[in-house]
Amino acid sequence: MDISQFVAQSIGTWRSQRSAHHLAFQHFEAVQSVVDITTLDMSDERVIALCKSYDVDPSSAIAPFHMQWEGESDWDEDAEPIKGETVLVPVPDANQPNHGQLLREQGYAETIEAAGKYYFTEDGMFVLETSYDRAAAEERIWFANPKLRFRVSMIKTSGGSGVVTASFASEIKTNA
Amino acid sequence: MDISQFVAQSIGTWRSQRSAHHLAFQHFEAVQSVVDITTLDMSDERVIALCKSYDVDPSSAIAPFHMQWEGESDWDEDAEPIKGETVLVPVPDANQPNHGQLLREQGYAETIEAAGKYYFTEDGMFVLETSYDRAAAEERIWFANPKLRFRVSMIKTSGGSGVVTASFASEIKTNA
Repeated sequence: MDISQFVAQSIGTWRSQRSAHHLAFQHFEAVQSVVDITTLDMSDERVIALCKSYDVDPSSAIAPFHMQWEGESDWDEDAEPIKGETVLVPVPDANQPNHGQLLREQGYAETIEAAGKYYFTEDGMFVLETSYDRAAAEERIWFANPKLRFRVSMIKTSGGSGVVTASFASEIKTNA
Repeated sequence: MDISQFVAQSIGTWRSQRSAHHLAFQHFEAVQSVVDITTLDMSDERVIALCKSYDVDPSSAIAPFHMQWEGESDWDEDAEPIKGETVLVPVPDANQPNHGQLLREQGYAETIEAAGKYYFTEDGMFVLETSYDRAAAEERIWFANPKLRFRVSMIKTSGGSGVVTASFASEIKTNA
């Protein structure tokens, strides 16, 4: 598995069922959402702008994509629907093709730009580590089959040892 | 990571928070339980008996352990507590030390004996595949830190392509 194959497999519309475990107080949160992942052209101005803001030469980026999600959590029944979108741009390492950077217009954990480091394990699991100001996130994504992917995320305090939230998403592709 | 280190890290009492995703009907199930994992002697009669029933020479087994769990699910409020125990015996491959068999007195998915095949990925994740009569299970277990482990399981129909249930457990060690 390399980043191009991984992005290609991810393109589509996914029905996502996500459980978040808030570990300190043993709370379960259930989130149902629809996630749309579409390819972007390398020439897309949002891709170029994101590369620029990280001083990355756009020619070293590959397979940029757009992600959009909309869903509902059972955490607070009165809350507005969870909604968002972001642009993601992979930048493989020149020397280690299974490693690279993933630039993101807007993070999940904080609404700021973020650049995470990714690698693939030998059995095709994508692992992404992102450091924020006061927290760090680790995300693992893998395909059980072409129409089913799993996503495990954890949010750690910036010290790194304290994991505050772990979450698990099962995502079923509803179209090609 | 090898199987001895993995078992050593697993010994203790764990407070487990598990979410099961029943994929066909998008149901979330929440399970809270306590899991106790203790070492067993190689000379323990349950270990010897389990080896015998799989024609395994007990001298090729290592680090046998006992697992016991008790918990509650929100699936059916009136149900009896979830309770069980089993003996597990790892049998590493002579030629591939990161691969082996895991003998189990009693399976999770069916109440029969089972022998699964395990391996470790290069980043220390334990992966176990077990085939049953009409189903197959895949389990992935890894440590976020010595006191926090994650467990992702999926149950597939025996054809292999249809995943019916995926579950995710966050487990916090409450003692040494």
